Amino acid sequence: MSDIKDCPFCHLKERVLIENDMATAFLSDPRKVKGHTLVTPKRHVEKPWEVTPEELQAVYELIFKLEQKLASGHGEGADIRQNYRPFLEQSRLKVDHVHFHVIPRKKFDRIYEVAEHFDTVLFEKLTDDEQNEVRKLIEEA
Amino acid sequence: MSDIKDCPFCHLKERVLIENDMATAFLSDPRKVKGHTLVTPKRHVEKPWEVTPEELQAVYELIFKLEQKLASGHGEGADIRQNYRPFLEQSRLKVDHVHFHVIPRKKFDRIYEVAEHFDTVLFEKLTDDEQNEVRKLIEEA
Repeated sequence: MSDIKDCPFCHLKERVLIENDMATAFLSDPRKVKGHTLVTPKRHVEKPWEVTPEELQAVYELIFKLEQKLASGHGEGADIRQNYRPFLEQSRLKVDHVHFHVIPRKKFDRIYEVAEHFDTVLFEKLTDDEQNEVRKLIEEA
Repeated sequence: MSDIKDCPFCHLKERVLIENDMATAFLSDPRKVKGHTLVTPKRHVEKPWEVTPEELQAVYELIFKLEQKLASGHGEGADIRQNYRPFLEQSRLKVDHVHFHVIPRKKFDRIYEVAEHFDTVLFEKLTDDEQNEVRKLIEEA
Protein backbone atom coordinates (compact mmCIF):
# COMPACT_ATOMS: atom_id res chain seq x y z
CA MET A 1 0.00 0.00 0.00
CA SER A 2 2.52 2.59 1.09
CA ASP A 3 5.25 1.55 -1.33
CA ILE A 4 4.42 0.87 -4.96
CA LYS A 5 7.19 -0.72 -6.97
CA ASP A 6 6.77 1.33 -10.13
CA CYS A 7 5.94 4.65 -8.48
CA PRO A 8 8.80 7.14 -8.68
CA PHE A 9 7.44 9.12 -5.72
CA CYS A 10 7.57 6.02 -3.51
CA HIS A 11 11.31 5.82 -4.19
CA LEU A 12 12.69 9.30 -3.77
CA LYS A 13 16.35 9.82 -3.09
CA GLU A 14 18.71 12.57 -4.11
CA ARG A 15 16.12 15.22 -4.87
CA VAL A 16 14.67 15.33 -1.34
CA LEU A 17 14.85 18.77 0.32
CA ILE A 18 12.97 18.40 3.59
CA GLU A 19 10.66 15.82 5.16
CA ASN A 20 8.68 14.97 8.25
CA ASP A 21 7.02 11.77 9.49
CA MET A 22 4.32 11.63 6.82
CA ALA A 23 5.43 13.84 3.93
CA THR A 24 8.41 14.59 1.69
CA ALA A 25 9.38 17.70 -0.29
CA PHE A 26 11.69 17.31 -3.28
CA LEU A 27 12.79 19.16 -6.39
CA SER A 28 10.76 18.66 -9.54
CA ASP A 29 12.76 17.26 -12.47
CA PRO A 30 11.99 18.47 -15.08
CA ARG A 31 10.95 21.77 -13.52
CA LYS A 32 9.05 24.80 -14.81
CA VAL A 33 11.07 27.48 -13.01
CA LYS A 34 13.96 27.52 -10.58
CA GLY A 35 12.75 26.33 -7.18
CA HIS A 36 9.80 24.30 -8.53
CA THR A 37 9.27 21.69 -5.80
CA LEU A 38 6.81 18.88 -5.11
CA VAL A 39 5.37 17.72 -1.79
CA THR A 40 3.86 14.24 -1.34
CA PRO A 41 2.38 12.20 1.45
CA LYS A 42 4.84 9.32 2.00
CA ARG A 43 2.04 6.80 1.71
CA HIS A 44 1.07 5.94 -1.87
CA VAL A 45 -2.34 7.53 -2.36
CA GLU A 46 -3.89 8.44 -5.72
CA LYS A 47 -7.15 10.18 -4.89
CA PRO A 48 -6.71 13.57 -3.16
CA TRP A 49 -9.69 12.97 -0.86
CA GLU A 50 -8.02 9.81 0.47
CA VAL A 51 -5.23 11.90 1.98
CA THR A 52 -5.88 11.74 5.76
CA PRO A 53 -6.15 14.87 7.94
CA GLU A 54 -2.79 13.99 9.50
CA GLU A 55 -1.15 13.60 6.08
CA LEU A 56 -2.67 16.86 4.87
CA GLN A 57 -1.25 18.65 7.90
CA ALA A 58 2.18 17.09 7.33
CA VAL A 59 2.10 18.01 3.64
CA TYR A 60 1.16 21.63 4.38
CA GLU A 61 3.79 21.94 7.10
CA LEU A 62 6.36 21.40 4.34
CA ILE A 63 4.48 23.48 1.73
CA PHE A 64 4.33 26.50 4.03
CA LYS A 65 8.02 26.18 4.95
CA LEU A 66 9.01 26.03 1.29
CA GLU A 67 6.63 28.77 0.27
CA GLN A 68 8.10 31.25 2.70
CA LYS A 69 11.66 30.45 1.61
CA LEU A 70 10.98 30.26 -2.11
CA ALA A 71 8.75 33.34 -2.21
CA SER A 72 11.59 35.37 -0.77
CA GLY A 73 14.41 33.57 -2.61
CA HIS A 74 13.38 32.54 -6.11
CA GLY A 75 10.11 34.41 -6.41
CA GLU A 76 8.05 37.22 -4.99
CA GLY A 77 5.14 34.86 -4.49
CA ALA A 78 4.26 31.18 -5.00
CA ASP A 79 1.53 29.00 -6.47
CA ILE A 80 0.36 25.77 -4.86
CA ARG A 81 -1.18 23.29 -7.27
CA GLN A 82 -2.60 19.82 -6.93
CA ASN A 83 -3.81 18.26 -10.16
CA TYR A 84 -6.14 15.27 -10.11
CA ARG A 85 -6.25 14.11 -13.72
CA PRO A 86 -7.10 10.43 -13.96
CA PHE A 87 -7.81 10.95 -17.68
CA LEU A 88 -4.05 11.13 -18.36
CA GLU A 89 -1.80 8.08 -18.40
CA GLN A 90 1.03 8.00 -15.88
CA SER A 91 4.27 9.28 -17.49
CA ARG A 92 7.44 11.19 -16.63
CA LEU A 93 5.34 14.38 -16.52
CA LYS A 94 2.30 12.76 -14.85
CA VAL A 95 2.74 10.69 -11.69
CA ASP A 96 -0.39 9.28 -10.03
CA HIS A 97 0.91 9.45 -6.43
CA VAL A 98 -0.83 12.58 -5.05
CA HIS A 99 1.58 15.53 -5.07
CA PHE A 100 1.37 19.27 -4.52
CA HIS A 101 3.45 21.67 -6.63
CA VAL A 102 5.05 24.72 -5.00
CA ILE A 103 6.09 27.09 -7.77
CA PRO A 104 7.92 30.38 -7.13
CA ARG A 105 6.24 33.23 -9.03
CA LYS A 106 7.21 36.74 -10.06
CA LYS A 107 5.36 39.44 -11.94
CA PHE A 108 5.54 38.79 -15.68
CA ASP A 109 7.70 35.69 -15.17
CA ARG A 110 8.24 33.02 -17.82
CA ILE A 111 5.15 31.05 -16.79
CA TYR A 112 3.07 34.18 -17.33
CA GLU A 113 4.72 35.06 -20.62
CA VAL A 114 4.63 31.59 -22.15
CA ALA A 115 1.23 30.32 -21.03
CA GLU A 116 -0.64 32.06 -18.27
CA HIS A 117 -1.39 35.38 -19.96
CA PHE A 118 -3.66 33.44 -22.32
CA ASP A 119 -5.78 32.55 -19.26
CA THR A 120 -7.52 35.93 -19.26
CA VAL A 121 -9.62 35.04 -22.31
CA LEU A 122 -11.04 32.05 -20.44
CA PHE A 123 -12.93 34.10 -17.87
CA GLU A 124 -16.65 34.46 -18.45
CA LYS A 125 -19.39 35.91 -16.32
CA LEU A 126 -21.24 33.37 -14.17
CA THR A 127 -24.85 33.15 -15.39
CA ASP A 128 -27.89 32.30 -13.26
CA ASP A 129 -28.52 29.16 -15.30
CA GLU A 130 -25.00 27.92 -14.77
CA GLN A 131 -25.15 28.76 -11.07
CA ASN A 132 -28.32 26.69 -10.72
CA GLU A 133 -26.83 23.81 -12.65
CA VAL A 134 -23.70 23.61 -10.49
CA ARG A 135 -25.73 24.06 -7.32
CA LYS A 136 -27.94 21.13 -8.28
CA LEU A 137 -24.93 18.91 -8.87
CA ILE A 138 -23.37 19.84 -5.50
CA GLU A 139 -26.60 19.39 -3.59
CA GLU A 140 -27.35 15.95 -5.03
CA ALA A 141 -27.06 13.27 -2.40
CA MET B 1 -9.52 40.86 11.82
CA SER B 2 -12.03 38.32 10.61
CA ASP B 3 -14.16 40.77 8.64
CA ILE B 4 -12.53 43.36 6.39
CA LYS B 5 -14.85 46.04 5.05
CA ASP B 6 -13.52 46.15 1.48
CA CYS B 7 -12.86 42.41 1.09
CA PRO B 8 -15.39 40.71 -1.20
CA PHE B 9 -14.62 37.31 0.32
CA CYS B 10 -15.52 38.58 3.81
CA HIS B 11 -19.01 39.42 2.49
CA LEU B 12 -20.17 36.45 0.47
CA LYS B 13 -23.83 35.91 -0.17
CA GLU B 14 -25.66 34.44 -3.11
CA ARG B 15 -22.76 32.52 -4.62
CA VAL B 16 -22.20 30.29 -1.56
CA LEU B 17 -22.50 26.55 -2.27
CA ILE B 18 -21.51 24.84 0.96
CA GLU B 19 -19.87 25.86 4.22
CA ASN B 20 -18.74 24.65 7.61
CA ASP B 21 -17.70 26.43 10.82
CA MET B 22 -14.45 27.85 9.47
CA ALA B 23 -14.66 27.77 5.66
CA THR B 24 -16.93 28.70 2.76
CA ALA B 25 -17.16 27.35 -0.81
CA PHE B 26 -18.69 29.56 -3.50
CA LEU B 27 -18.87 29.92 -7.24
CA SER B 28 -16.18 31.97 -8.96
CA ASP B 29 -17.52 34.95 -10.93
CA PRO B 30 -16.06 35.38 -13.47
CA ARG B 31 -15.16 31.73 -13.89
CA LYS B 32 -12.77 29.83 -16.16
CA VAL B 33 -14.95 26.78 -16.80
CA LYS B 34 -18.33 25.58 -15.60
CA GLY B 35 -18.07 24.50 -11.97
CA HIS B 36 -15.06 26.70 -11.14
CA THR B 37 -15.40 27.24 -7.38
CA LEU B 38 -13.41 28.94 -4.64
CA VAL B 39 -12.91 27.87 -1.03
CA THR B 40 -11.82 30.34 1.68
CA PRO B 41 -11.24 30.30 5.39
CA LYS B 42 -13.96 32.53 6.87
CA ARG B 43 -11.38 34.54 8.77
CA HIS B 44 -9.65 37.20 6.69
CA VAL B 45 -6.10 35.93 6.23
CA GLU B 46 -3.72 36.99 3.44
CA LYS B 47 -0.63 34.83 3.88
CA PRO B 48 -1.22 31.11 3.21
CA TRP B 49 1.06 30.05 6.07
CA GLU B 50 -1.12 32.01 8.51
CA VAL B 51 -4.02 29.64 7.83
CA THR B 52 -4.33 27.58 11.05
CA PRO B 53 -4.34 23.74 11.03
CA GLU B 54 -8.06 23.84 11.95
CA GLU B 55 -8.85 26.23 9.09
CA LEU B 56 -6.82 24.14 6.65
CA GLN B 57 -8.79 21.07 7.66
CA ALA B 58 -12.10 22.93 7.26
CA VAL B 59 -11.05 24.28 3.85
CA TYR B 60 -10.05 20.83 2.61
CA GLU B 61 -13.21 19.21 3.93
CA LEU B 62 -15.07 21.45 1.43
CA ILE B 63 -12.47 21.09 -1.33
CA PHE B 64 -12.64 17.29 -1.23
CA LYS B 65 -16.45 17.33 -1.22
CA LEU B 66 -16.53 19.62 -4.25
CA GLU B 67 -13.77 17.78 -6.03
CA GLN B 68 -15.61 14.47 -5.90
CA LYS B 69 -18.84 16.04 -7.16
CA LEU B 70 -17.28 18.25 -9.82
CA ALA B 71 -14.88 15.62 -11.10
CA SER B 72 -17.81 13.36 -11.83
CA GLY B 73 -20.22 16.10 -12.93
CA HIS B 74 -18.47 18.86 -14.85
CA GLY B 75 -15.08 17.26 -15.33
CA GLU B 76 -13.21 14.00 -15.34
CA GLY B 77 -10.73 15.41 -12.87
CA ALA B 78 -10.03 18.63 -10.98
CA ASP B 79 -7.20 21.04 -10.21
CA ILE B 80 -6.70 22.66 -6.82
CA ARG B 81 -4.83 25.96 -6.91
CA GLN B 82 -3.80 28.48 -4.32
CA ASN B 83 -1.96 31.50 -5.66
CA TYR B 84 0.04 33.73 -3.35
CA ARG B 85 0.92 36.73 -5.48
CA PRO B 86 1.52 39.81 -3.36
CA PHE B 87 3.15 41.46 -6.41
CA LEU B 88 -0.31 42.00 -7.95
CA GLU B 89 -2.71 44.69 -6.80
CA GLN B 90 -6.07 43.54 -5.45
CA SER B 91 -8.73 43.67 -8.23
CA ARG B 92 -11.84 41.87 -9.40
CA LEU B 93 -9.59 39.03 -10.63
CA LYS B 94 -7.18 39.16 -7.67
CA VAL B 95 -8.52 39.09 -4.12
CA ASP B 96 -6.00 39.04 -1.26
CA HIS B 97 -8.12 36.94 1.16
CA VAL B 98 -6.53 33.46 0.88
CA HIS B 99 -8.61 31.26 -1.43
CA PHE B 100 -8.26 27.87 -3.09
CA HIS B 101 -9.58 27.26 -6.60
CA VAL B 102 -11.28 23.98 -7.46
CA ILE B 103 -11.43 23.70 -11.24
CA PRO B 104 -13.09 20.78 -13.07
CA ARG B 105 -10.80 19.43 -15.76
CA LYS B 106 -11.21 17.22 -18.82
CA LYS B 107 -8.75 15.93 -21.39
CA PHE B 108 -8.07 18.63 -24.00
CA ASP B 109 -10.52 21.04 -22.34
CA ARG B 110 -10.62 24.78 -23.04
CA ILE B 111 -8.03 25.54 -20.35
CA TYR B 112 -5.64 23.14 -22.05
CA GLU B 113 -6.37 24.42 -25.53
CA VAL B 114 -6.18 28.13 -24.72
CA ALA B 115 -3.28 28.27 -22.30
CA GLU B 116 -1.99 25.12 -20.69
CA HIS B 117 -0.60 23.32 -23.71
CA PHE B 118 2.03 26.06 -23.90
CA ASP B 119 3.25 24.87 -20.48
CA THR B 120 5.20 21.99 -21.98
CA VAL B 121 7.90 24.29 -23.37
CA LEU B 122 8.58 25.56 -19.85
CA PHE B 123 9.93 22.27 -18.54
CA GLU B 124 13.70 22.03 -18.29
CA LYS B 125 15.95 19.42 -16.79
CA LEU B 126 17.01 20.11 -13.21
CA THR B 127 20.80 20.71 -13.16
CA ASP B 128 23.16 19.95 -10.27
CA ASP B 129 24.01 23.63 -9.92
CA GLU B 130 20.40 24.60 -9.65
CA GLN B 131 19.71 21.79 -7.20
CA ASN B 132 22.53 23.03 -4.97
CA GLU B 133 21.34 26.61 -5.20
CA VAL B 134 17.77 25.77 -4.15
CA ARG B 135 18.99 23.44 -1.42
CA LYS B 136 21.15 26.21 0.03
CA LEU B 137 18.18 28.59 0.11
CA ILE B 138 15.95 26.03 1.83
CA GLU B 139 18.58 25.05 4.38
CA GLU B 140 19.38 28.63 5.40
CA ALA B 141 18.26 29.36 8.94
